[in-house]
Amino acid sequence: MSLMLQEIAEQPEALERTLAAEREKYAALGKFLRGRDIDLIVIVARGSSDNASLFGRYLLEVTCGIPVSLSAPSVYTLYDAKIDLKRALVIGVSQSGEGSDINMVLEKAKATGAYTLAITNEAASTMASIADETMLIHAGRERSVAATKTYTGQMLHFYMLANELAANKLDLSVIPAYTAQALELKPQIEELVQRYTFMENCVVVGRGMNYGNSYELALKLMETCYVVAERFSSADFFHGPLAIVERRFPVVLFGPAGVTQQSSIELLDRLHELNADCLAITNDAEIAKRSPKSLSLPAKIDEFLSPIPFIVPAQLFAALLSEAKGLDPDAPRSLSKVTKTI
Amino acid sequence: MSLMLQEIAEQPEALERTLAAEREKYAALGKFLRGRDIDLIVIVARGSSDNASLFGRYLLEVTCGIPVSLSAPSVYTLYDAKIDLKRALVIGVSQSGEGSDINMVLEKAKATGAYTLAITNEAASTMASIADETMLIHAGRERSVAATKTYTGQMLHFYMLANELAANKLDLSVIPAYTAQALELKPQIEELVQRYTFMENCVVVGRGMNYGNSYELALKLMETCYVVAERFSSADFFHGPLAIVERRFPVVLFGPAGVTQQSSIELLDRLHELNADCLAITNDAEIAKRSPKSLSLPAKIDEFLSPIPFIVPAQLFAALLSEAKGLDPDAPRSLSKVTKTI
Repeated sequence: MSLMLQEIAEQPEALERTLAAEREKYAALGKFLRGRDIDLIVIVARGSSDNASLFGRYLLEVTCGIPVSLSAPSVYTLYDAKIDLKRALVIGVSQSGEGSDINMVLEKAKATGAYTLAITNEAASTMASIADETMLIHAGRERSVAATKTYTGQMLHFYMLANELAANKLDLSVIPAYTAQALELKPQIEELVQRYTFMENCVVVGRGMNYGNSYELALKLMETCYVVAERFSSADFFHGPLAIVERRFPVVLFGPAGVTQQSSIELLDRLHELNADCLAITNDAEIAKRSPKSLSLPAKIDEFLSPIPFIVPAQLFAALLSEAKGLDPDAPRSLSKVTKTI
Repeated sequence: MSLMLQEIAEQPEALERTLAAEREKYAALGKFLRGRDIDLIVIVARGSSDNASLFGRYLLEVTCGIPVSLSAPSVYTLYDAKIDLKRALVIGVSQSGEGSDINMVLEKAKATGAYTLAITNEAASTMASIADETMLIHAGRERSVAATKTYTGQMLHFYMLANELAANKLDLSVIPAYTAQALELKPQIEELVQRYTFMENCVVVGRGMNYGNSYELALKLMETCYVVAERFSSADFFHGPLAIVERRFPVVLFGPAGVTQQSSIELLDRLHELNADCLAITNDAEIAKRSPKSLSLPAKIDEFLSPIPFIVPAQLFAALLSEAKGLDPDAPRSLSKVTKTI
């Protein structure tokens, strides 16, 4: 079995470990941050960590009412801008903690008076040594080039942080069990991917809490299956990109029950008119009914808690499609695990 | 000649008109904003307007030192979040001024005490009636479905705003002439596009000030040529997506002289190793030398002023490739000019 598949399967336990290990640190951090009058959150990351941050952005804005800016690292690294962040919380997110540009942004933000937080899988990393506080993903060493367990671990950290800053708390204790239930889709996905063996390009659509997941599945499909995978919110997809859809063009949709349901249905209906090929990852009966193919998760999953269980079938889809295509998901061509950015 | 080509050609005059017509209003707005202690700028847009805003984000952060957040409209429209924006400047950008979700964000932001600014081509639009102040793009009615002259018009507005808030001002008066010079590339592009007649997918890369342009060219290629066009910063491209590149995979690079030059060269060298097919839009001799194909703009163009002239050959490329493919750039399948979002 590939490392990628092994690490996908480790997620329920890794999430459980992180919840237990970081709970007290978050309580203390929350107390500190609530006394600090944070009026902006800046998140800085690359790759899968950036996709987790895209989820974090929606979660933090919606549940905490604090505006979030996803940082453009080159503003600091190439253009050497002096941004006033003294009332901001600046969060660096990196599996390895060794992204040099991410670390430079944290250093510069700290110098302007921002409070800096690191979310990383490596306690002894450079990032952990820079940040005012470090929260750890207890995923164990990630050996697969394609990040899976650290991606969901990072998402979990955004939940834990949001719960400290929001008036209404989410019940995070159910997430590991939902994730385990999502893993049960594996045999079904093993069969399903055969149908996509010759897929060369596709569009992945998600919205709101699942928008980051659309970026993450597209990235996994590019890395491990060499599929030219676009990613859009269903809203942006209607602004132009829809023109690329021809008969049997493959579209994968993250379509949870909840506030995005109506726009998912509108999109599926339009794609049906265009004779596109759709696969919905959903826990909504109406969405499943309107999509030619679907992967179904438990209906009880609240939309706000859907992103972690919903990415699991997508991770399995990429890892298994890679094998169906005769590729090795652990050895993506042209890539290495840690990327240095100039 | 297509409407799209006609409107591309109108850009130098449209830019000149906007510079002249809005100068005094910006001077007054700048005076007002400098007295207001703005500590965050939020920009809200969809489609091409969102791509212009992506440029605006880099420009405003780098030149003014104020953090910028590109708004996720669904946070307001679907999740009904209450974001505290009382110290923010919130800018709505829309060609038509009728994007209902964009307008809803402006209304909600205004209700929390934000100062709201509209940038639109339509003085009588809903957006203009909502915002505290409206700045007009004097492009004349845009009849092409694919936005061109309003895209560069919106970028010009970000320059005019930045010049009011930044310590160092850019000389914007040269932009219309640079844009006219870029139009002179048309005969060369007319020949060049023949080579791309059968291109089905590609990647567009840009970074920093030209990052928004990479999104805009990708969108134009999707809308008018039905090419599955990905868009990345050169930094993000190395984080995974590089795996999709095989022999002769087409990559278009915005590679101006300036601080992004080194990362452009690093990318071109890596793509050369992978036998990829590269087209550089550049005014840097080293970048032109290292790219198998290139479109050259005047060397004197400062990187900070490059985004408007640099998008012009890209617009021409999309419009002319559409025709080379036997398509009509004015009639993209499945699209309409104004997109309603739920």
